[in-house]
Amino acid sequence: MNELSHDVRLSCSHDEAIARVTRALGDEGFGVLSRIDLHDKFRDKLGIDFRPYTILGACNPALANVALTAASEIGLMLPCNVTVEAAEGGGTLIRIINARTMMEMADFGDDDQIAAVGQEADDRLKRVAEVLAN
Amino acid sequence: MNELSHDVRLSCSHDEAIARVTRALGDEGFGVLSRIDLHDKFRDKLGIDFRPYTILGACNPALANVALTAASEIGLMLPCNVTVEAAEGGGTLIRIINARTMMEMADFGDDDQIAAVGQEADDRLKRVAEVLAN
Repeated sequence: MNELSHDVRLSCSHDEAIARVTRALGDEGFGVLSRIDLHDKFRDKLGIDFRPYTILGACNPALANVALTAASEIGLMLPCNVTVEAAEGGGTLIRIINARTMMEMADFGDDDQIAAVGQEADDRLKRVAEVLAN
Repeated sequence: MNELSHDVRLSCSHDEAIARVTRALGDEGFGVLSRIDLHDKFRDKLGIDFRPYTILGACNPALANVALTAASEIGLMLPCNVTVEAAEGGGTLIRIINARTMMEMADFGDDDQIAAVGQEADDRLKRVAEVLAN
């Protein structure tokens, strides 16, 4: 089993972490197309306090187009998730999905094109994690 | 490998299919928390025509809370994706993610709570597919 995500811990606030990862994703051609603030949903729907926990949906349109053209069901695995949450002991934990693992897990057959686009997406996402860590 | 999704083909339009699946998800406690119209993104960012292809992010807050409390990295697999696309030969194809398969694929360990919540979510999503098919 490969790692599921590339994790980075930052000492900044939740909002600042979201801003920084959004910027770094943009530099690799990923737009943030969706944002779910689970803590807000849990408060509104369940009446409970939950630590800040946001799910961002990142998508590189060119890579998504190649993947979807090769296998239309691949939309089930898109966009690439990035979670941002309050870390235990302070600071903010960012997890960036391992796109290669996701493509392999879904078992879309041994389509070389799917494997290549998963690798390309993941190379970019790994660079996002590296940029944030430095 | 288990099936990746529960698929339903409807003869209605794209917009009507989105309305119907959103309603059926609501009846099972899933709100649609995100919507990505990939055809719009592909037109705006790549200048290409793509058939209508929408990714909806569905979330049952109570189940998400149980899952996240058991394993905080599970946000990488949320929300539950539902894709709606123009089907070959006419009509609209809806794919609803198999939540149990997703939980198993991610290999969060043999945590009984994760398995139970994946099963519960999937029982509900299967009923959504059945309601739409009838």
